[in-house]
Amino acid sequence: MPSRRVVVGLHPVRELLRAGREVHEIHIADSRGGSDTLDDIVRLAGERGVVVHESPRDRVDDLGEGLVHQGVVAFAPPFRYATLDEAIAAVPDDEPALFVALDRITDPMNLGSIARTAEAAGAHGVIVPERRAAGVTPTVEKAAAGALAHLALVQVVNFVRALRTLGEAGIWSVGLDGDAPSSLYDSPLLTEPLVLVAGSEGKGLARSSHVQCDVVVSLPMRGQVGSLNASVATAVALFEVVRART
Amino acid sequence: MPSRRVVVGLHPVRELLRAGREVHEIHIADSRGGSDTLDDIVRLAGERGVVVHESPRDRVDDLGEGLVHQGVVAFAPPFRYATLDEAIAAVPDDEPALFVALDRITDPMNLGSIARTAEAAGAHGVIVPERRAAGVTPTVEKAAAGALAHLALVQVVNFVRALRTLGEAGIWSVGLDGDAPSSLYDSPLLTEPLVLVAGSEGKGLARSSHVQCDVVVSLPMRGQVGSLNASVATAVALFEVVRART
Repeated sequence: MPSRRVVVGLHPVRELLRAGREVHEIHIADSRGGSDTLDDIVRLAGERGVVVHESPRDRVDDLGEGLVHQGVVAFAPPFRYATLDEAIAAVPDDEPALFVALDRITDPMNLGSIARTAEAAGAHGVIVPERRAAGVTPTVEKAAAGALAHLALVQVVNFVRALRTLGEAGIWSVGLDGDAPSSLYDSPLLTEPLVLVAGSEGKGLARSSHVQCDVVVSLPMRGQVGSLNASVATAVALFEVVRART
Repeated sequence: MPSRRVVVGLHPVRELLRAGREVHEIHIADSRGGSDTLDDIVRLAGERGVVVHESPRDRVDDLGEGLVHQGVVAFAPPFRYATLDEAIAAVPDDEPALFVALDRITDPMNLGSIARTAEAAGAHGVIVPERRAAGVTPTVEKAAAGALAHLALVQVVNFVRALRTLGEAGIWSVGLDGDAPSSLYDSPLLTEPLVLVAGSEGKGLARSSHVQCDVVVSLPMRGQVGSLNASVATAVALFEVVRART
C-alpha cells in the first residue's frame, strides 16, 4: 500500500481541494498557460495551506507517472474507500437511495467514467468488488474528472452479499442486462430506493448477481449491432432514474 | 488517401461482413482461441468468398498497426462517408429522423463511442465537420464496435450549413449544452424529426452552432462536479429520444 497517491489533471486536483480532502502538495508545470480551473486550484490551495510548487515540465512529467496530467500533479493520502454501512448511512433522509454496483468492470476508463456520471446523476455511491475488478488508480481518478472526491466508492469482498445488505436496508437491486425481456422504461421501481447493478462488458452480469437482483431490465435496442458500452448503458439508466424522480 | 484501410477487432470485422461491405482479406492469429464471434466471421467470410488467412501472431500484430486487434485484422476499401443528402434520403418514411451532429469532437474514442450508441439507438446518421474533428481511423472503428458498418457517417465542410440543410428537410436542431436553462426532459420536440447537436468536451457548442439550433437543452445535474463526458451526454439524450418515441 503506497503511503501517498498521485492525482493528475485539472479537475481531479481541483475537486480534491473543493471537497476538503487532504492534499500534501501540488506541482504545476511552469510552462503551462493559465485557466479558470488552475486559478481555482491556486486559490483553494492557498486557503487550505497546501504548498504549490512551480516546477519544470520534465519534473511534472516524472511526478505524473506518464499520465496526461495537464501540467498539474498533486500528492495526497491513499484513496479511502467507504464502507457499505457508511455509504448507506450517508443517504439523506429525504432522498430515495441511488447506488451503482459494478460487477467485474475491469477497464479503468469505464470505472472512472461511471463514477463521473454517477456523481453527476446524484448517486450516493458506487460499489465494486475487491477482486477481478478495477480499483482506484490515477487513470481512474483522471477519467472520473474529480467525481471521486465527492462520491462514496465502496469496495466489497462479497458482491452478492453487498446486494443482500442493501436489500435489508430497503434498497432494491435492479440489474441491467441486454437480454432481459423487461424494459428499464417500464420499471415501477425507479422512484424507489435502488441500486443499479451493471455487468462487465462482454460477459454481462454474473449468474450469482443476476439471481440476487429483484428485477433485471434491458434498454430497448434499435440498431443492427445492438450493444452498448457498459459505461454508456449505466449512464442511460442513471439518468432515466433522474428523469423518473424529477 | 490510402487505397485500403485496416479494420481490427472481432465486432468491427464481423459487422463489415454482416452489413455486406466489401472486404479484401482477413487475417486471424493462429494462436487465438475460438469464440462465437470468430465463428461468425469465418462463416460469413466463406459465404462472401473473402479469403481468411491463419497467420502467426507477430504478423497479425504488424498488420494491426499496434492496435488492440483481438487476433483479427481485415483489409477493406477506404471508409466511405455518406453525403448529407444520402443520409436524409435514407430515413424510412415511417420513422421520424434521428441524427447526431458532433461539433468539434476531436477524441477518436468519443467519436467511436457515440457512433456505437447512435446505431444502438436507431439513429439514421452521425454528422461531423471535416476540419478540427476526428475522422474515421482504426481506433474509431474499434471503439464503434462495428456500428460504422451500419450507420451513415457524414463529413461536412460547413457544419452550420448542414444544420440549415437538415432544417430545410423538416429536421429540428436540438443542441445539448450543460448551461442551458431548459431541460431535455421538458422538450416537446423529441418525437419530431430531429438532430441532436453535441459540442466538444470542455468547449461545448460553438457559438455559430448554438445560434443555428432551434432549441438548446441541458441534462439536469445533481452532483457537485456536474459535468458529463460528451459521449455520455449524447448517449443519455439519444435514449431519452428512444424512450419518448416508444
